[in-house]
Amino acid sequence: MSQKPWDGRFSEETDRVVEAFTSSIDIDRHLYKYDIEGSIAHCRTLARAEIITPKEADELVFGLEAIREEIETEKFEYKDSLEDIHMHIEDRLSTYVGSLSRKLHTARSRNDQIALDIRLYVKDQGGKIAGHLRDLCNAFTDLAEKNIDVVMPGYTHLQRAQPVLFAHHMMAYFEMFLRDKSRFENCVERVDVMPLGSAALAGTTYPLDRSYTAELLGFSAVSENSMDAVSDRDFIMEMLSCASICMVHLSRFSEELVLWASTEFSFVDLPDAFCTGSSIMPQKKNPDIPELVRGKTGRVFGSLTAMLTVMKSLPLAYNRDMQEDKGPLMDAVDTLRACLDIYVRMLPKITVNRNVTESASGRGYLNATDMADYLVEKGMPFREAHGCVGKAVAFALGEKKELHELDLSELKFFSSLIEDDIYPALSVKQMIDRRKTYGGTATQNVRDAIVRARKRLS
Amino acid sequence: MSQKPWDGRFSEETDRVVEAFTSSIDIDRHLYKYDIEGSIAHCRTLARAEIITPKEADELVFGLEAIREEIETEKFEYKDSLEDIHMHIEDRLSTYVGSLSRKLHTARSRNDQIALDIRLYVKDQGGKIAGHLRDLCNAFTDLAEKNIDVVMPGYTHLQRAQPVLFAHHMMAYFEMFLRDKSRFENCVERVDVMPLGSAALAGTTYPLDRSYTAELLGFSAVSENSMDAVSDRDFIMEMLSCASICMVHLSRFSEELVLWASTEFSFVDLPDAFCTGSSIMPQKKNPDIPELVRGKTGRVFGSLTAMLTVMKSLPLAYNRDMQEDKGPLMDAVDTLRACLDIYVRMLPKITVNRNVTESASGRGYLNATDMADYLVEKGMPFREAHGCVGKAVAFALGEKKELHELDLSELKFFSSLIEDDIYPALSVKQMIDRRKTYGGTATQNVRDAIVRARKRLS
Amino acid sequence: MSQKPWDGRFSEETDRVVEAFTSSIDIDRHLYKYDIEGSIAHCRTLARAEIITPKEADELVFGLEAIREEIETEKFEYKDSLEDIHMHIEDRLSTYVGSLSRKLHTARSRNDQIALDIRLYVKDQGGKIAGHLRDLCNAFTDLAEKNIDVVMPGYTHLQRAQPVLFAHHMMAYFEMFLRDKSRFENCVERVDVMPLGSAALAGTTYPLDRSYTAELLGFSAVSENSMDAVSDRDFIMEMLSCASICMVHLSRFSEELVLWASTEFSFVDLPDAFCTGSSIMPQKKNPDIPELVRGKTGRVFGSLTAMLTVMKSLPLAYNRDMQEDKGPLMDAVDTLRACLDIYVRMLPKITVNRNVTESASGRGYLNATDMADYLVEKGMPFREAHGCVGKAVAFALGEKKELHELDLSELKFFSSLIEDDIYPALSVKQMIDRRKTYGGTATQNVRDAIVRARKRLS
Amino acid sequence: MSQKPWDGRFSEETDRVVEAFTSSIDIDRHLYKYDIEGSIAHCRTLARAEIITPKEADELVFGLEAIREEIETEKFEYKDSLEDIHMHIEDRLSTYVGSLSRKLHTARSRNDQIALDIRLYVKDQGGKIAGHLRDLCNAFTDLAEKNIDVVMPGYTHLQRAQPVLFAHHMMAYFEMFLRDKSRFENCVERVDVMPLGSAALAGTTYPLDRSYTAELLGFSAVSENSMDAVSDRDFIMEMLSCASICMVHLSRFSEELVLWASTEFSFVDLPDAFCTGSSIMPQKKNPDIPELVRGKTGRVFGSLTAMLTVMKSLPLAYNRDMQEDKGPLMDAVDTLRACLDIYVRMLPKITVNRNVTESASGRGYLNATDMADYLVEKGMPFREAHGCVGKAVAFALGEKKELHELDLSELKFFSSLIEDDIYPALSVKQMIDRRKTYGGTATQNVRDAIVRARKRLS
Repeated sequence: MSQKPWDGRFSEETDRVVEAFTSSIDIDRHLYKYDIEGSIAHCRTLARAEIITPKEADELVFGLEAIREEIETEKFEYKDSLEDIHMHIEDRLSTYVGSLSRKLHTARSRNDQIALDIRLYVKDQGGKIAGHLRDLCNAFTDLAEKNIDVVMPGYTHLQRAQPVLFAHHMMAYFEMFLRDKSRFENCVERVDVMPLGSAALAGTTYPLDRSYTAELLGFSAVSENSMDAVSDRDFIMEMLSCASICMVHLSRFSEELVLWASTEFSFVDLPDAFCTGSSIMPQKKNPDIPELVRGKTGRVFGSLTAMLTVMKSLPLAYNRDMQEDKGPLMDAVDTLRACLDIYVRMLPKITVNRNVTESASGRGYLNATDMADYLVEKGMPFREAHGCVGKAVAFALGEKKELHELDLSELKFFSSLIEDDIYPALSVKQMIDRRKTYGGTATQNVRDAIVRARKRLS
Repeated sequence: MSQKPWDGRFSEETDRVVEAFTSSIDIDRHLYKYDIEGSIAHCRTLARAEIITPKEADELVFGLEAIREEIETEKFEYKDSLEDIHMHIEDRLSTYVGSLSRKLHTARSRNDQIALDIRLYVKDQGGKIAGHLRDLCNAFTDLAEKNIDVVMPGYTHLQRAQPVLFAHHMMAYFEMFLRDKSRFENCVERVDVMPLGSAALAGTTYPLDRSYTAELLGFSAVSENSMDAVSDRDFIMEMLSCASICMVHLSRFSEELVLWASTEFSFVDLPDAFCTGSSIMPQKKNPDIPELVRGKTGRVFGSLTAMLTVMKSLPLAYNRDMQEDKGPLMDAVDTLRACLDIYVRMLPKITVNRNVTESASGRGYLNATDMADYLVEKGMPFREAHGCVGKAVAFALGEKKELHELDLSELKFFSSLIEDDIYPALSVKQMIDRRKTYGGTATQNVRDAIVRARKRLS
Repeated sequence: MSQKPWDGRFSEETDRVVEAFTSSIDIDRHLYKYDIEGSIAHCRTLARAEIITPKEADELVFGLEAIREEIETEKFEYKDSLEDIHMHIEDRLSTYVGSLSRKLHTARSRNDQIALDIRLYVKDQGGKIAGHLRDLCNAFTDLAEKNIDVVMPGYTHLQRAQPVLFAHHMMAYFEMFLRDKSRFENCVERVDVMPLGSAALAGTTYPLDRSYTAELLGFSAVSENSMDAVSDRDFIMEMLSCASICMVHLSRFSEELVLWASTEFSFVDLPDAFCTGSSIMPQKKNPDIPELVRGKTGRVFGSLTAMLTVMKSLPLAYNRDMQEDKGPLMDAVDTLRACLDIYVRMLPKITVNRNVTESASGRGYLNATDMADYLVEKGMPFREAHGCVGKAVAFALGEKKELHELDLSELKFFSSLIEDDIYPALSVKQMIDRRKTYGGTATQNVRDAIVRARKRLS
Repeated sequence: MSQKPWDGRFSEETDRVVEAFTSSIDIDRHLYKYDIEGSIAHCRTLARAEIITPKEADELVFGLEAIREEIETEKFEYKDSLEDIHMHIEDRLSTYVGSLSRKLHTARSRNDQIALDIRLYVKDQGGKIAGHLRDLCNAFTDLAEKNIDVVMPGYTHLQRAQPVLFAHHMMAYFEMFLRDKSRFENCVERVDVMPLGSAALAGTTYPLDRSYTAELLGFSAVSENSMDAVSDRDFIMEMLSCASICMVHLSRFSEELVLWASTEFSFVDLPDAFCTGSSIMPQKKNPDIPELVRGKTGRVFGSLTAMLTVMKSLPLAYNRDMQEDKGPLMDAVDTLRACLDIYVRMLPKITVNRNVTESASGRGYLNATDMADYLVEKGMPFREAHGCVGKAVAFALGEKKELHELDLSELKFFSSLIEDDIYPALSVKQMIDRRKTYGGTATQNVRDAIVRARKRLS
């Protein structure tokens, strides 16, 4: 006969296939650290409430710490019949403290226990992700600083639009990842609520000092409503949302790296150590890291979809469906952390081919807007100037020349307002440095932005 | 020949089918209010920078206000050939101010203009959603207060678990929707950044005082990086995430209403005015509102999926794909607001069948946990008590009795620790009121929670 | 120095973190069987084309079979530095056949090799899923047959609507899962195309007889276009779509089981061996299997989202993003197969509480439609009859009676057309058996449907 | 007092806000054609069963046809209080045929009626989509044929890999869209089942000849189970899956067009009539159509997510949530059809810059594989040849030369097997034409593939 913690009323043993199907140990074993930390705090709280003696608490804590040691040194054995990490630990605990182990579960249900474990996980991992994001923001700032004077074409619709500083482009990613950091921080603040003491769903009859438990575990608050505490998984959905948005940013940067590493663009060289080749084509050096990061975006979106689907329409309070919450969460956290980490490592090793990017900035009529602005300064309304330059572009295209390669008489054909002073206005350097409104790409602006960025990060 | 704002370099007119395919006017016309508000602020900023005269600014503002009036009184005509709301307004403006209208677009691109419009929309709608959520939280608190002494079965796995107060159950939803409110507030804080002045992507050459524009429009900050400012749609993805999580909560409550309105549960009566019948079955009174709200969850999840998909892997800066951002956003905002609003209206009219819920609380062995707790108090370790009560339940099931319907001799069979004082311990009232740890369902706890809830909302 | 199959042009070794990040061996090791099967066929094809000698082919095949044996007996060692299953096998092969192993990769790229492996996997697993579905359809038919005379309320909007046979309800699921089977079969037909010989993307210069390879591997056709062959993952997206729709059906049935196992419904008893209890509440017997199956729906939807996201906007031909295809696929296949299997095992053990379902069929005005039909037969237009019965229901509700519990004088108040012959018309039995149009719930209909079902399955 | 078709038992009028919230007329009005077609067939079936007289049937049909005319000439008025298209038509019908209109709903429920309408819609639209796909396949074949001798670089990982024919690349898309066509055809076959006669859920008591109705409406079969017939929305989920996969293909082609239209690639010119410019940058010619199509992919994925979410966990039979099925379906169908149509129009106008693509094929070491193959032919094992060529590439990179630009002595340094005959082997033309295994890019292969394509389409 089996020894489930709940089989008093059952007349039939659990089917083996059912045990395997319902077991969550493969996933929730990764929570052991939080589970033991929570159990230790629970022991201390039980002792404070005089439900167990201080000595009993010490014994239980000793046993729990021993088990943690076993797990961390890979001496711990897992089996489906024990369902989950809670039961594994409790079962093992009895070999250390005998029947005393059976008191640990007083005033506690697996419902509030797992809620605690995942909250501790989310707090911990959320903090770590914020750390990766800080590192990544630093790496972008370093890359920007290192290449402060490199000019490249700025694009809209993947068409060359206006020249920008490569550093300005990098600092756009700084902004995205800093916002990601703030989102994860908000998420961590919201999860910082201690659920233990909610028991199965209705609260407990034991006089637990929940604030004490919260203090031991480093939480800022205790949960206000026991039914909500055990059935709430907002923090998982929120963390997966934050992760999905962050992956969008990573995918955008990855796409750009893939483009820039192509023969056609040749804007950057990726480090050999971060690329792989082809088993059939000897010349290939593939941008595998950006491609994989881009691909992993799907995985994280999938986790978000999964979790929203799981939670939709579940009546209160706990339902077994919620066991399916940990897979998507952990997979997304691991994926995101790995992607952030690999870019923190790779960014410093990216080389910009400044000759290529600068030469590209001079071809493709990127100075058309500035020619229009020139005409506006001479008094032409903007919309008219736009049309006039459009015609000049069409003409130059036919001539296979750039605008600044047309001679003055050709240019004057499009407007008599044009004088010799147009040529400097069409130079890449002037175009960059004239864009000096706050947030623009002028070199001094970007230098200032880098200084501010360092401050905003610290 | 058409009169596109950009056709100078084109040799061929836009195909009609292409115009229809690329037009966004059906959607972005809903942004007219924000677009005009932004254009007015831009006029004032142009004047302050002496790019246009104060008189020109006044004329432009007059024209823009007249157009707003036209739109609001439905006298404005829309057509695909004008692509979007920006072009519609600019085109119409020329009938008011002639060629002066062509100056409005100085130092501005549709890229930063649309970024502004959507940010204003998200700020505005985010605030309104927060307002709905406050109303809904109030409605749950009222419903809780009104039914403060109603007992019902609490469920896990949709199996009766332990008795709870109906009010406690309602206050669980209060917690969820209050968290939603805080998420929307964080989202609104993050979107509160003014993008105008970023122009197409690189910033503008005109000396705009962007802080002045921000002040006019009520923004707390200006964007730090022009490329990010025009290519960022984080606030849409974040708002859709918040909306999806909120819909999860609405779907859970809806599911419960559908269950409770069934003949089997009969826990609540929904107001006739919020139900519909069947065209074939004359007896039917269907819980259409909760069903529809539950169904609309899919729609909002779909919008989130759509938006994440659109943004994935887009290189900087603006890409036309991003035109597809507004449909999902607006549909989700309208859907969520309608769902919140209908529940704010419906909640006060829900009647709880307290006789049914109370009688249900006494059947289904909901006092099994308390019997175990009783044994623990008498000195039995919890796990042992659990097993002992499990056997008592199995026995009672066979007898078709509840635990409290067994007589003392029968109970003693399971443990000699059981005495006459067990019967009060198994009563619903005691079970509720013994759960008085913070966050538990004891009546006084819930009363206190309601008082705190009122304060937290205001 | 490492020994990558592609490092000729590289000057720097792959970073360890990069190796771990890019390695796919944890996932694609599950493809070993298909990979070896494909390699064996490729050997034979190389020999037939006289690219290698028959003896060389024999040696290679011998080595490959030995490796298969090693893997199946868990003697094979995996390491991240060898990237994927192809490299692991090729590397190991050299210990069996020395440098001959290096000829195996002639006229083949990992691009067509992995395309082959996944296609073999999808064909194989698709067939197995179809088998599970056939078993499940049989199980539903058995359950229907066993309970052929059990009446239960049919529901719309979770409100009692009209009585139906429990068997009729079960046969609705038969229809759903039979459609699922046909979808998987279509998917398997479409994937039945042999890609080998496409090499990296452009086809191969070696004179391979691709039809021969197809024949060896049991494919009906060879791919028509080499670029499509290596970049196509339609079959994964299609299989995940089929799996998602099938999970929708499983989730619907699961939802019903959860409802029916509740105290409120009490329509079925689930076998103890398929339920679990609570660690805190001794009375609980939870419907874990249906809950978990319902929850796992999210996981499969998530895989579909992931895969669609991965493939969106990828240029031809192979991109490394596509490495992320196997995780979602395999997870969904394993999940679906486990869910189907557990229900095939559980269905025969479900007990229907016929007294409960039958008694429920007589309460809740399920005969209102038949009363309206009765009036229509007596000459009243349907819409009028509907209104008249609606009023009778309202009256009966006030009296706390069912329609058939009203006496004739009361009934006549609503229409003088009503006579004594109304009472049999309102009986559950007649209601069931009068619905004898094809597809209706009349007992003989359902019997016939069961007979047809057996035939359609075989 | 309102006149709902179901308000007999109701004591309170429907709230206005509720009417607006629950109304589906904005969406289901698009089904009018199918609804009327179905009603006409139902009339005829009622007459055949002698439930109404032939004359009554004629009158009803006359009325229904008149209403169709009204709708098509936009003379029909819609209002929220009539809920849906069925009620609108029935309400209007009474002005044509008086109280006879009330007989139309005999033996029918809105549940089977809407199931019929959507099935007719899916059959019809599915057929139309298949038609678009055939046109698109033709357009790709034409484009391929027109450019049969144009060479371009083939890519993997967006790195130049091996030269391919542009026509071969186009025919890869032919394969994808032909598979899409077959998926839609399977979907249409599965939806080809007539649900009328299922009534609310249990079948009808009226002796309808359902096969007759099916024949009138052009269905191949009648539904087997009434509960399944009214609660099944598989065909919507399947159609949305097919649409999503098809959008993946469209997004891939779009991505390539965006790349190819960039200055960096310059492989194609898109027709001016299908591009738009910038309101600020006069030089811009943006690939709006491909960008929008790529963006609309998100919308279709979103619809699929929405629909799967709606259907998950719904108990049988009809639930009001299912009203949310039509929005995602119709939006996806309209989106997909518009995208297919615009590409059918645009494809013939795309110009390939063959000088650019051909010159690109000669730079970037695309002949490295062929150099390895050359060495294999001379007797070197493939893996060794790969390493040897890798080293030659590294050397050539340093010399800023291509492989075929190295002189023989330089080449011999990497292997003494190399002779003068290597140069022709490294030429683009030979590389293309040596890949003549079935499905490869050799010119004759592609010509044959085009011929087969024409046949497979017709």
